Amino acid sequence: MERIVIALGGNALLQKGERGTAQEQFKNARKTAEKIADLIEIGYDIVITHGNGPQVGALLIQNDCAKDKVPAMPLDVLNAESQGQIGYFIQNSLKNVLIERGIEKKIATIVTQVVVREDDPAFQNPTKYVGPYYTEEEAKKLMEEKGWVIKPDPRGGWRRVVPSPEPIDIVEKDVILSMLEGGILPITVGGGGIPVIYKNGQYIGVEAVIDKDLASALVAKLVKADMFIILTDVEHVMLNYGKENQVPLRNVTVDELKKYYEEGHFPPGSMGPKVKAMINFLNNGGKLGVITHLNKLLEAVELKSGTIIKG
Amino acid sequence: MERIVIALGGNALLQKGERGTAQEQFKNARKTAEKIADLIEIGYDIVITHGNGPQVGALLIQNDCAKDKVPAMPLDVLNAESQGQIGYFIQNSLKNVLIERGIEKKIATIVTQVVVREDDPAFQNPTKYVGPYYTEEEAKKLMEEKGWVIKPDPRGGWRRVVPSPEPIDIVEKDVILSMLEGGILPITVGGGGIPVIYKNGQYIGVEAVIDKDLASALVAKLVKADMFIILTDVEHVMLNYGKENQVPLRNVTVDELKKYYEEGHFPPGSMGPKVKAMINFLNNGGKLGVITHLNKLLEAVELKSGTIIKG
Repeated sequence: MERIVIALGGNALLQKGERGTAQEQFKNARKTAEKIADLIEIGYDIVITHGNGPQVGALLIQNDCAKDKVPAMPLDVLNAESQGQIGYFIQNSLKNVLIERGIEKKIATIVTQVVVREDDPAFQNPTKYVGPYYTEEEAKKLMEEKGWVIKPDPRGGWRRVVPSPEPIDIVEKDVILSMLEGGILPITVGGGGIPVIYKNGQYIGVEAVIDKDLASALVAKLVKADMFIILTDVEHVMLNYGKENQVPLRNVTVDELKKYYEEGHFPPGSMGPKVKAMINFLNNGGKLGVITHLNKLLEAVELKSGTIIKG
Repeated sequence: MERIVIALGGNALLQKGERGTAQEQFKNARKTAEKIADLIEIGYDIVITHGNGPQVGALLIQNDCAKDKVPAMPLDVLNAESQGQIGYFIQNSLKNVLIERGIEKKIATIVTQVVVREDDPAFQNPTKYVGPYYTEEEAKKLMEEKGWVIKPDPRGGWRRVVPSPEPIDIVEKDVILSMLEGGILPITVGGGGIPVIYKNGQYIGVEAVIDKDLASALVAKLVKADMFIILTDVEHVMLNYGKENQVPLRNVTVDELKKYYEEGHFPPGSMGPKVKAMINFLNNGGKLGVITHLNKLLEAVELKSGTIIKG
């Protein structure tokens, strides 16, 4: 059975303009689940990973608002909370869709810790966008009030940035493999995983956000995925992105993609990490990767859509 | 290998007087993990369940404080968040203790949905106090706005009350069994599990709180536990609790315990549900149960401590 790791982007749970109510997230998760169920129905063996930007952003706001009443939690704990929340949205929705289609499948979200290096230079240079979008005025006020680093997001608006160290290992890797052997579909490394360093024989949580695409690439390598798919809100990776002469990439080799990456075609914080995640996967034994729009999942698997990258 | 289901009480993560910072919860989780590791070291096969009272209470307060900025989540979603949070505290701490002892063991928190009946009478008669304390004025406004039931709390102020329906099934039961077969220690039904009803072939989250001991009894039955242990902050179940003639129960049969339960010896909301959970387990194929203090776990397994109940 072919194995596919699917990394869900923000639009798998939230559409632009939505506030992120539970109802909205269930509605979107349902649509996403329908698309994943198509692949399960065909017989693919699936692993799901996902982001948590808006959700952990909401948790950060809630923790801040209530900080005089209950202790605010650090980012590692908030990531764990978001894994529970989003995992529930996805696993509930996917289960319901599969019941409708008469498909029996064990599904489980596992709380997952991902190891980063204590001396990763990212800790000195925060770059990862988290939380809600602000106006420039709001952003400047928040930077002053809270000491946050807030920058303009290439997709519009201003957002907080936090350290984004490289994922180097998955604490629960044996669990993921064992689950797959047992026929369980794992939902894992949510929001890039809970960031931990390994020090003196102990895993210790740290205040950071691991890029979910890089963590997903690690999962894809771990489970020896036949295909690694990153779903986002555009159908193709673009060369000369945002310029008049931008062109979609359809079929590329990993070497070509790496050349473009090094030439600076892909904005850091959006397409950059997705491309980097693909390069990581394909340079570490992976054979095939696709970056495409959430709605094109089935076409992507059939290699009829998206940016298809060969190792 | 003997299999033991351990239901952790509130004091596994929080001591009296603590505010519930991440640091405090990690410190307590570590102590708890040391005790569980003792059993893993001997060779027992363990399943961990846990409560979430203080943690979900904090989430409710956070959601309430920030409700004008980000959408407040319903109780089913907050339970999922608490499973992620508490699961991380436990699985991180237990992993670290086992590394120190040179024991390899796969551990994973799985986000778990627990089924309740839509027509459970609890939905007509909510009894479980949750979340922040309100003034009478605020309470009346919220009752109108959200349709919540808010009552004067005997401890002062007005608080939301929610239904506490009986758990009847575990959506992820096949996942739990498959994980055990694969040698994974599952942390499951946190906070009694995410409450869902099953309606028209769909699992739908509901605003309720399932008693964690009753959900744990369901887990103990599911995995055919050789022993079901409920850990709390007293060493023994008491007859005539709180009265001058109170006496600790040491060895009882389930029939004797049931008689005492029906005579009203055990306060609802504290020892009552624990005793009921034991009766449920032992009347459904279980052979041996113990209710004791967290610090007496090893002695309980050796039948040297706690209230020992035989089926």
